[in-house]
Amino acid sequence: MVNYNRQLDRTFAALVDPTRRAILARLEREDGASVSALAKPFAIKLPAVMKHLDVLDDAGLITRSKLGRTVTVRLSPEPMREAMDWLRRYERFWSARLDRLAAYAEGKEAEARKRGR
Amino acid sequence: MVNYNRQLDRTFAALVDPTRRAILARLEREDGASVSALAKPFAIKLPAVMKHLDVLDDAGLITRSKLGRTVTVRLSPEPMREAMDWLRRYERFWSARLDRLAAYAEGKEAEARKRGR
Repeated sequence: MVNYNRQLDRTFAALVDPTRRAILARLEREDGASVSALAKPFAIKLPAVMKHLDVLDDAGLITRSKLGRTVTVRLSPEPMREAMDWLRRYERFWSARLDRLAAYAEGKEAEARKRGR
Repeated sequence: MVNYNRQLDRTFAALVDPTRRAILARLEREDGASVSALAKPFAIKLPAVMKHLDVLDDAGLITRSKLGRTVTVRLSPEPMREAMDWLRRYERFWSARLDRLAAYAEGKEAEARKRGR
């Protein structure tokens, strides 16, 4: 439980920063990217990007592999699954709201049909 | 987009702390709880709990209403929906893995049937 909690702490902490979320979103679209390619779209310097990559790595959200002078970064999405499972318990609130909306729409439709007769 | 990002920053930041997650989890089970009831299970002092409630309130994850001397805290789960929608894009990785597992299991089953003949 403690370890599970600590992993969730790290995962959510990694997701707090929009630059880190943008890096993860990019790695979701591309299967592996170099550090310099990842850094390009951002207005921050390479060392700042490296720090973000350290946080993502510590949280287990990316892996880095070095070949010659190029470091390739890849997504490791498993910890996000736990985060999503944690959030999932609140889903019933949204579906309850959707159920009420559906019931309302059906009621309006039935009314319209009645008037149409 | 900037506002959307800022809300996600706040939501994920609120979810980083295990005490705050425990408070949310409790409010998911109970429809409204007093501040003192919420504070009871924790080994921290009331002012510390109040600070956590401030963070949750700023992120829009709870509402507080006062009647006499009692403050009732209620869940306001909507921002977590956005957080979940953000995480959902990574779902295909997990389902891809599940598909591979299912294919493997089916292969094993077919083999076993062949041998059984």
